Amino acid sequence: MSDLSNGAAWMDGRIIPVSEAGINVTDWGLTHSDIAYDVVPVWNGAFFRLDDYLNRFLASVTAVRMQTGLERDAIIRVLHNMVAASGLRASYVAMVAARGRNPVPGSRDPRDCQNHFYAWCVPYVHIVKPDAADRGTSVWIAKSVRRIPKDSVNPTVKNYHWGDFTSGLFEAKDNGFETTMLLDHDGNVTEGPGFNVFAVFGDTVVTSDHGVLHGITRRTALEMAAARGLKVETRPLPLDEFRQADEVFLSSSGGGVIPVARVDEQHFSNGAAGPVARQLRTDYFAWLEQDRFRTPISYY
Amino acid sequence: MSDLSNGAAWMDGRIIPVSEAGINVTDWGLTHSDIAYDVVPVWNGAFFRLDDYLNRFLASVTAVRMQTGLERDAIIRVLHNMVAASGLRASYVAMVAARGRNPVPGSRDPRDCQNHFYAWCVPYVHIVKPDAADRGTSVWIAKSVRRIPKDSVNPTVKNYHWGDFTSGLFEAKDNGFETTMLLDHDGNVTEGPGFNVFAVFGDTVVTSDHGVLHGITRRTALEMAAARGLKVETRPLPLDEFRQADEVFLSSSGGGVIPVARVDEQHFSNGAAGPVARQLRTDYFAWLEQDRFRTPISYY
Repeated sequence: MSDLSNGAAWMDGRIIPVSEAGINVTDWGLTHSDIAYDVVPVWNGAFFRLDDYLNRFLASVTAVRMQTGLERDAIIRVLHNMVAASGLRASYVAMVAARGRNPVPGSRDPRDCQNHFYAWCVPYVHIVKPDAADRGTSVWIAKSVRRIPKDSVNPTVKNYHWGDFTSGLFEAKDNGFETTMLLDHDGNVTEGPGFNVFAVFGDTVVTSDHGVLHGITRRTALEMAAARGLKVETRPLPLDEFRQADEVFLSSSGGGVIPVARVDEQHFSNGAAGPVARQLRTDYFAWLEQDRFRTPISYY
Repeated sequence: MSDLSNGAAWMDGRIIPVSEAGINVTDWGLTHSDIAYDVVPVWNGAFFRLDDYLNRFLASVTAVRMQTGLERDAIIRVLHNMVAASGLRASYVAMVAARGRNPVPGSRDPRDCQNHFYAWCVPYVHIVKPDAADRGTSVWIAKSVRRIPKDSVNPTVKNYHWGDFTSGLFEAKDNGFETTMLLDHDGNVTEGPGFNVFAVFGDTVVTSDHGVLHGITRRTALEMAAARGLKVETRPLPLDEFRQADEVFLSSSGGGVIPVARVDEQHFSNGAAGPVARQLRTDYFAWLEQDRFRTPISYY
């Protein structure tokens, strides 16, 4: 038996260590970044909101006109068996549809490619370390790049087009910030690498609805806010308005609700995690444990 | 000995069949499309303009702040030995720098990733079949997408962000066209999947200089045009002006100069390959054989 505790992958019907799982260097999934994917968290031995993540994944696969040959139930079985085999009770679980190769050498017709599905899981990822998130993290607004616009690449289909994010991350790290967020070409706040962005104004929570992924954790954050009696708005969020926010936070399947203490040189909520963000962060870890959202895994 | 005649790859110091060459499913080269690459053609047993392709590749690698650990001479040796081992005398040869993985689980800092280099070669690719190119091909202007803007992803660094091209290719194929070209958000002609676009007005050849790859074949086409006594202009090319062109052609390392007979429902040069494009196409195959551009390969 291989050691799968550092991560497992499902490829072509076999479960293998993630370190041994590769995609061919000529697969369009790589050479054309022609991938639709999703990531569902496993927390305390159960998938969280598995149906919602699967629904989005299957909608993405359809949107990019791929056919993986696997039905919904088969994908669930793959994910379940793979995570069970890994033994991971807290995991970041990726499901991926790749365009594959065109069997006709030189053909550029995407309709003829042999699409395929694979999956992998690794120990749970916090995109911001929990202690840094508890204190409130720092976010750099990318200066050299704007978010790839929605009429170039559809951001509601979770994808690997990250060049703009990577440029922003280099800027952020060079300037001593934890992460980055990008503006669109009209100066509105969009999203960052792996997260949505929220601003709190009094009892109202606002997040963008344009040119961003409709994150499942974004949805959870909106539901939790509503459950706390807050008003929620999903609409374009101009930077000028954003800068007037009482507090700021991020949402990600990799860590839930992440308070923000600083954006560029501007401090929010007195340079600490704001009260709304802290409440929702606590709520998120509580919701992770709620049976209504959980699909328990039968480990061996 | 493996059969390398369908293509070879160089990975981690070994030459293997391209069908066995993979990149890990968690490599940022894949998951963030964080790749800089280039493709040099081999024609009749020699690299064409190898120095120019290598210069661009090395500039791309620097631009995206990668370090492959291989010097220029070492890359040349890799490419040479790999193509020689494949026995391919006409080949599409890819050199790739990938961001690699971050050794710290969960870290999003691109500066710490373990970058790596690999290469692969396959039989020479014509992006348009030669007989179709001789007659003049058909190009569909993408309607649902605009080219990813240069302030989102730098198009002069050859990269795998192809989502906009793939959307355009689906449109093109659904409408019975061979390939697609994209407009920028200001309505200028940019480029297509793997090629630059040229318009001919009388004795003047125009191609875009904004938001496009500075193709080596684009350069060759400009040099060949100048050598034929034509004027050349590199500048933004509005669609309205483009539609007034006497003829249209494409340039690609996968097939050289490719005449265009039709763009959407509009015929150019009487719905056939235009005389300038035909001349430059002939010139390109002649230039491929000129010693000043050739780096011969010593096959086993």
